[in-house]
Amino acid sequence: MAKKKAARRKVGRTLYAGVDIGGTKLHTVVARGNGKILGRARKKTKGELGFAGVMARVVACVEAACKEAGISPKDLRAVGVGAPSAMTADGVAVHAPNLGWRRTPVAAKLRSLLGRPVVGGNDCDVGTLGEYVFGAGKGSRSLVGLLVGTGLGGGIVYHGALISGENHLAAEVGHMTVQVDGRLCSCGHRGCLEAYASKSGMGRRFAADLEAGRQSVLATTKGIDLANVRSGVLLKAYRSGDGLVRDVLAESARYLGIGIANLVTLLGPDTVVIGGGVYEALGRNLLPLVKAAAKKAVWPPASYKDTRIVLSALGDDAVALGALAYAHQRFH
Amino acid sequence: MAKKKAARRKVGRTLYAGVDIGGTKLHTVVARGNGKILGRARKKTKGELGFAGVMARVVACVEAACKEAGISPKDLRAVGVGAPSAMTADGVAVHAPNLGWRRTPVAAKLRSLLGRPVVGGNDCDVGTLGEYVFGAGKGSRSLVGLLVGTGLGGGIVYHGALISGENHLAAEVGHMTVQVDGRLCSCGHRGCLEAYASKSGMGRRFAADLEAGRQSVLATTKGIDLANVRSGVLLKAYRSGDGLVRDVLAESARYLGIGIANLVTLLGPDTVVIGGGVYEALGRNLLPLVKAAAKKAVWPPASYKDTRIVLSALGDDAVALGALAYAHQRFH
Repeated sequence: MAKKKAARRKVGRTLYAGVDIGGTKLHTVVARGNGKILGRARKKTKGELGFAGVMARVVACVEAACKEAGISPKDLRAVGVGAPSAMTADGVAVHAPNLGWRRTPVAAKLRSLLGRPVVGGNDCDVGTLGEYVFGAGKGSRSLVGLLVGTGLGGGIVYHGALISGENHLAAEVGHMTVQVDGRLCSCGHRGCLEAYASKSGMGRRFAADLEAGRQSVLATTKGIDLANVRSGVLLKAYRSGDGLVRDVLAESARYLGIGIANLVTLLGPDTVVIGGGVYEALGRNLLPLVKAAAKKAVWPPASYKDTRIVLSALGDDAVALGALAYAHQRFH
Repeated sequence: MAKKKAARRKVGRTLYAGVDIGGTKLHTVVARGNGKILGRARKKTKGELGFAGVMARVVACVEAACKEAGISPKDLRAVGVGAPSAMTADGVAVHAPNLGWRRTPVAAKLRSLLGRPVVGGNDCDVGTLGEYVFGAGKGSRSLVGLLVGTGLGGGIVYHGALISGENHLAAEVGHMTVQVDGRLCSCGHRGCLEAYASKSGMGRRFAADLEAGRQSVLATTKGIDLANVRSGVLLKAYRSGDGLVRDVLAESARYLGIGIANLVTLLGPDTVVIGGGVYEALGRNLLPLVKAAAKKAVWPPASYKDTRIVLSALGDDAVALGALAYAHQRFH
């Protein structure tokens, strides 16, 4: 028995868990530091249960993934968490509107519940780290990630480390201004990249053009939320040749390319990774448009060829694996 | 004699030289690693002499500054150089249009002429490093510098090190797009920050407004180059209440503030330093406008209070002292 326990510890303490705490879903992976996944689990977040309730569900999700990997949570070397909030260096969620959290000590709480070291980061930041370490950015030195969904999030990795600003609030790639006095953004400012390149931004143009009498399948789709059209619906409309959807997606891709050009002009990463629901569905259609716009706007022009612009390789696993990488960086 | 030489070496090898190779002027400082200046020298660059001719003048300028400091160039620990070009990691100037240089081995040439270690960087980058180490950014952790003159250059320092991209071509803060399809920039693109916030950008608006019949002292100033109005002339016109000059400077300050907001939103530096001729002359007048625009555009809004936006403290010495700091970072 003692022998078995010792053996388990020897193996077990090389494993990590990474947890993606989303607004609606929890997703956990258990893996080695090299990203080889040995266990997975998913649960609903159930934010309505409040912080303590969600933390209990996270613990259950980690336990389920550990069970699949044949270990106990006690055997984990460390746990990483990504949450939809700015996170302080010690894992306090500053404000997670989707979960109703403010100044919520995510890492400390999980540390006490799991009895293992826990680190936490913003979901877009750690998702970018995931692509950098295990995904489309593998082998790159510095990388910018952009996640295009209802909003537009992102992250910046420079020589192995996340840049999130001295206050851990930065890398808000969706809220750089690309059009002074431009389209209203969901943040209340005008002309942000998100106001053109995200689903909520596209929704404003859909609404305006339909209001002006333009035809589109979106006008006749029942119960549609124009500010958050499902990516599958966009893909179908795009394929069917819907003029409005094609125009708005092309515009969004052009703006995304210009936003990427700004990041290349400022930071000169060797890799830019684009993920999120819109590009998981339409990436192959839109990537050429994004690249063409980026190429036209990068300065100096020679920089364009030094940056690969690629689609996410990890998809749904990016945040969980990135959180795991984050834990591995701090505890190995 | 031997004793004297040994003593000199003991003192001398704690000193560094920093050289600012400008399009028209050379400026050298000799100082301790802590920035205490013991010698200075200035000469004309005379770019028409070609690379070898300019290098000989740099050596003479370093010798003159060393003489004032009471040492010989052989006593220097190392030499840093800032040049108006992208610079590779080993100090090759990629392209300096003002000097007609392409793939020019600045650091290697000076190393062989001076017999001391030499490092080189882009002038805006090392100028920003100068402010970070010795100037307005002293004590900060990460910093963005913007130099507003004929063009708009800048640099990014993150936790002590310059970020210039994997290809050493980045940190081109003046060429981020802030107005898609906007005003033509001197680089040939549209809507760059430089097209609004620099003297060349303001020049386009001056020309357009004068053409449209607007009154201004600029219309009656003899031999004026609207694309490069001297900062002293701008200050005088601003003070005299010239409507056009006031409007265009206010617009340029607003755009600069929005550009700064983008940098804070992306990188969250604790300090932003603004320098260059325009802000040396008009900084106190324009800084409140810059700050107001930045405050309105930063995301999340809380980030604004975490970033100081200040004027350059080193003025003309920034590049030379920054080059010296760069040499000190590599050789100490």
